[in-house]
Amino acid sequence: KKKNHHVTRFCCLQSVKGVWPLPQSFTISSERYPLNPQAFYFAYGKQSAAQEGCSVLDEAFKRYFSLIFPDYISGSILQFSEDQPFTVQVSVGLDDCDGYPDENSSEQLYTLCLSTGLETFSQLVYQEDFGSYFVNKTEIEDFPRFQFRGILLDTSRHYLPVRAILKTLDAMAFSKFNVFHWHIVDDPSFPYQSRTFPDLSAKGAFHPMTHIYTQSDVRRVISYARMRGIRVLPEFDSPGHTQSWGKGQSDLLTPCYRGSTPSGTFGPVNPALPSTYKFMATLFKEVSSVFPDSYIHLGGDEVNFSCWKSNPDVRAFMQKMGFGTDFTKLEAYYMENIVNITTALNKTSIVWQDVFDYHERIPKDTVLHIWKGDPASYEAELSRITKAGYRVLLAAPWYINHISYGQDWRNYYTVQPLNFSGTEEQKKLVIGGEVCMWGEYVDATNLTPRLWPRASAAAERLWSDEKQTSNVDKAFPRLQDFRCKLLRRGIQAEPLFVGHCKHEYQGV
Amino acid sequence: KKKNHHVTRFCCLQSVKGVWPLPQSFTISSERYPLNPQAFYFAYGKQSAAQEGCSVLDEAFKRYFSLIFPDYISGSILQFSEDQPFTVQVSVGLDDCDGYPDENSSEQLYTLCLSTGLETFSQLVYQEDFGSYFVNKTEIEDFPRFQFRGILLDTSRHYLPVRAILKTLDAMAFSKFNVFHWHIVDDPSFPYQSRTFPDLSAKGAFHPMTHIYTQSDVRRVISYARMRGIRVLPEFDSPGHTQSWGKGQSDLLTPCYRGSTPSGTFGPVNPALPSTYKFMATLFKEVSSVFPDSYIHLGGDEVNFSCWKSNPDVRAFMQKMGFGTDFTKLEAYYMENIVNITTALNKTSIVWQDVFDYHERIPKDTVLHIWKGDPASYEAELSRITKAGYRVLLAAPWYINHISYGQDWRNYYTVQPLNFSGTEEQKKLVIGGEVCMWGEYVDATNLTPRLWPRASAAAERLWSDEKQTSNVDKAFPRLQDFRCKLLRRGIQAEPLFVGHCKHEYQGV
Repeated sequence: KKKNHHVTRFCCLQSVKGVWPLPQSFTISSERYPLNPQAFYFAYGKQSAAQEGCSVLDEAFKRYFSLIFPDYISGSILQFSEDQPFTVQVSVGLDDCDGYPDENSSEQLYTLCLSTGLETFSQLVYQEDFGSYFVNKTEIEDFPRFQFRGILLDTSRHYLPVRAILKTLDAMAFSKFNVFHWHIVDDPSFPYQSRTFPDLSAKGAFHPMTHIYTQSDVRRVISYARMRGIRVLPEFDSPGHTQSWGKGQSDLLTPCYRGSTPSGTFGPVNPALPSTYKFMATLFKEVSSVFPDSYIHLGGDEVNFSCWKSNPDVRAFMQKMGFGTDFTKLEAYYMENIVNITTALNKTSIVWQDVFDYHERIPKDTVLHIWKGDPASYEAELSRITKAGYRVLLAAPWYINHISYGQDWRNYYTVQPLNFSGTEEQKKLVIGGEVCMWGEYVDATNLTPRLWPRASAAAERLWSDEKQTSNVDKAFPRLQDFRCKLLRRGIQAEPLFVGHCKHEYQGV
Repeated sequence: KKKNHHVTRFCCLQSVKGVWPLPQSFTISSERYPLNPQAFYFAYGKQSAAQEGCSVLDEAFKRYFSLIFPDYISGSILQFSEDQPFTVQVSVGLDDCDGYPDENSSEQLYTLCLSTGLETFSQLVYQEDFGSYFVNKTEIEDFPRFQFRGILLDTSRHYLPVRAILKTLDAMAFSKFNVFHWHIVDDPSFPYQSRTFPDLSAKGAFHPMTHIYTQSDVRRVISYARMRGIRVLPEFDSPGHTQSWGKGQSDLLTPCYRGSTPSGTFGPVNPALPSTYKFMATLFKEVSSVFPDSYIHLGGDEVNFSCWKSNPDVRAFMQKMGFGTDFTKLEAYYMENIVNITTALNKTSIVWQDVFDYHERIPKDTVLHIWKGDPASYEAELSRITKAGYRVLLAAPWYINHISYGQDWRNYYTVQPLNFSGTEEQKKLVIGGEVCMWGEYVDATNLTPRLWPRASAAAERLWSDEKQTSNVDKAFPRLQDFRCKLLRRGIQAEPLFVGHCKHEYQGV
C-alpha cells in the first residue's frame, strides 16, 4: 500500500510541473497541503483594493472553484474533522472591477498567497488516484512578456455559433490569451446585425435569422470575455474583403466595368463617392459604441485594383485628386479617411501591414499587423515598420488554420518575435502576437481541436521568458500535460502524439 | 407567396440531387409526393423472404424513420385528413436476418418501391422551409462497385471510447462503408481484454480499467455494426508492432542483445520458441470465436530484423532451420505458422503487403493489403500481386490520417484503383479499398471531423461507377450537400470550403 502511495505521488508531482504557459519565476517544493473542497475558500485580502461585490473576481472565484475540484458535488465528499480550512487570499492593487480589460490592465497585480493568478493556481492543484486534492508549496512571480496575446476567429467564411465563441474564450483564458480579435465580416457573409443598417446582415448574412450575431449576442460575447480578462477587438475590414456588404448597402461597392459598360460584378468599397464616407462614419460610430475596447481593427489588406481601374468614375476621381495612375494613393486616401473617422471616435486603429506598405505616413499611434510571408520576410517587415516608429503585432508565423501532418506546434513554439535587426526601442514597439484561425476550412465542427493545444504553443511564446522556454523538447511533456488538463475542463483539444490522458474526452 | 414557394422548390430540388455515393443508375423526376410522418410506414413486401421480426430490418426501419424525419416528435404535427398513407414496401430476396454480414452478403437485393436501399431513400427525402417533407419520383438501380469498402481505426496509439467507434459506424453506414477494420492492438497499448490472457490488457493497456475493450464492449461494437450491414474485421498484428503484448506475456517478445548480454529491450515476437505458437494458437482461437467475420487480419508489416539478429537463440534457430542469414525466411516461417493457425480455425487471412514482398508462396486465398508508396509504386504492386493470383485490398492512397491544408479530399476522390497494367482477371482480384485512420495524432477529440466528409470521397470511389464520377468539380457540390446531411444527422463533419449549412453543428 505504501508503495502505491509513492507511485501516485510520483505521478502527481510530474503533473504539477505542467503549468502552461511557464511563469517567469517558479519554484515548487515537495511540501504539500491537502485541499478539501468543503473547507476551501477564496477571500479578498484586507489590503486588496477590490472587495466582495467585485463582479469579475466574485465570478472568477466561482469558476475556478469548479475548475480546481472538477468532480466535486456539494455534500458528496465526507468531511474529515482534521481538515483545516484552506483560504486563498486574493489581493489586487487596483479596483478594476467594473471596467473592461484594456492594454493597460495590469496582469501582474493579482497576488495570492502563492503569488500567482487564479489560472496558474488552478493548474497547481492535482488529484490523487483516490480522489484527494493537493497543492504543493510553490513560489511564483509572474507577468506577461507581451501585452497583446490574441486569437483571431473568422465568422464570415463560416458562421460560428455564439457557444463556439464562448468555448474559445474559456480555453483562451486557460492559456492566458487576452485579446479576442473578432474578424466578424468579410466577403462571404456579413453576420453582424447592425442597429443602423439592418440590411447588411438581412441580405449579407448566410441566413438572416440563424446565421447572424444580434446585438445581444455581441454583448454576451463581450461580457463573457470581460469576466475572463479578455478584450474583444472587432475588425470591419475595408475597402477590400467587402463583397457581402454590397448586398445590403447599394452604391457602397465599386461597379466593375467590362469596356464601357458595367459588368454586373462589384469590387472594393467605392472610394470616389462622398456617400461611402458618410456610411462608414455612421457604421463605425455604432461599432465604436457596441465594442468598448479602445482599439478597432480596420483591415486594409489585399485590395485588388483591377475593378477600380475599370471604373470611369473612379478614374475621373483619380485625375481630380492628382493621383495619376497610382492606385496605392487612392487606397491610402481611403484608409486615411477611415482612420480619421475612428480617431474622432477616440479609438486607436489597427490595420494589416499592407497599409504601411503603400502608405508610410499614417498616424503614429496606428498599430501595424504583420501577416505576410516566411520568417525572412516578416523579420524584415518588423525591422522596417518599427524603424518608422510604429507599434506592431505579429501574426505571420501563427496562421494556425494552415495544417500539416505531425507536430507543427513546434513551429509555433520556436518563433522568436524579437529576433530582427533593430534597436532596443524598436523591440519595445512589438506589442504582441496573434494566432489567426481563418475560416476557409473551419467551422464549429473542427475549430476546437484545430486551435487547441496548437495555439497554446504560441501562448507560451507570448507570455513566458524566451530563454527559459527555448527548448521545444522540454516543453513537449508539459504541453502534453496541459492538453490533458484542457480535456479535463471539457475543451476538445487534440492529441500531440501517441499516448493517453487519465480523463479522456467524453463529448462524442 | 407563390414566388417563395418556387424559390423553396429550387433549393430543395438541388438538395435532392445530392445522393452520396452516386447510385449506378439514377433518374429523378420533378413529380413529388408529400410525406407526412404520421402517415408514413415501412412494410415488408408480400414477396419478401424476410418478414416482420427480422431484427436487422425492424431496427433499420426505426432508425431510418428518425433519420428521414429528424424533427418529428410524436403528436407534434397536425395530421391533415387529406394525407394519404405512404408506405415504403421493402422486399429482400434472402432471409439474412440473424446472420452477420459477410463478403457474400448481397447489397443489391434490397428493393423498395423506389428500387433503392434505405440509406439512399433517406437521402432522397427533403424538407421545405415550412417543415413539410417530400420525396420525388425517382428510379434507381444500385449495387456497389467493390465488395470491400473499409475504414481502419487504430485503438492502440490512442484509446477510442466505444461511443466514438459506434458514432463512426453510424457515419460509415451513411457513406455505405461495409467493413470496420479494427486495428485493435499495436506497440503503444493493448486495450483488448482477453478472456484467456487477461494480463495482456491488465498490463499492456494505457489503463487496465478505463482504457480497455471488455468482451461486452466488443460484442456491442459487433452487434451495432451488424445492424448497419457492417462487418468487423479484427487485426492482431504480429510479429512486429507488438511492444505492448510483452508487458502481459513474458517470453513472447525477442530479448534484444547488446554484444553478448541482453540489453533489456525487446523486439518482435520471438519466432524461435514453440511457446510462441502455442500462445498464438490459443489467442487466435479466442479471437476467432469473439469476432464472427470469416476474415481475420494478421498484420505482418514493418518487421525490424535488428533485434532478431542480435539474439543468439534466434541465430541458432536460423542455423537449425537452414535459413542462413536471410531473416525474411524467418519472418516467412513465422507468418506461415500464424496463417496455418487461422486457416485451421476456418478464417481467411488478410496480411499487409510486406508478407508478399518477402514470401511469394503464401496460401492462395490470403488477401494482400497494399499500404505503401506513391501512386506509381502501389500500381506496380497491384499489378505484381494480382499477377501472382492473389486478391488485394488497396489502402495506400487513402491514408486519411495524413492531413494537409485545403481540399485534399480531391486526391482521395480521383484514385483509380483499377488503373494498373493487368488482365481483366487480375482486375477482378481487387476486392476493394480501405480508408486508414492511423492514431498517432488522432483520438476521440478529432477523429470525426478528420474522417468526415474526407472518407466519403473514397466511399464514392469504392461504390459508384468510375465513369459517372470522374469529374471532381461536379462531385464538389454533391459532397457539400452530403456533408450538410451528415451535420443534420449529428455527425461532426468538417467543412469542405467557405459556406454554410441550413442546420449547423450544434454540439459545441
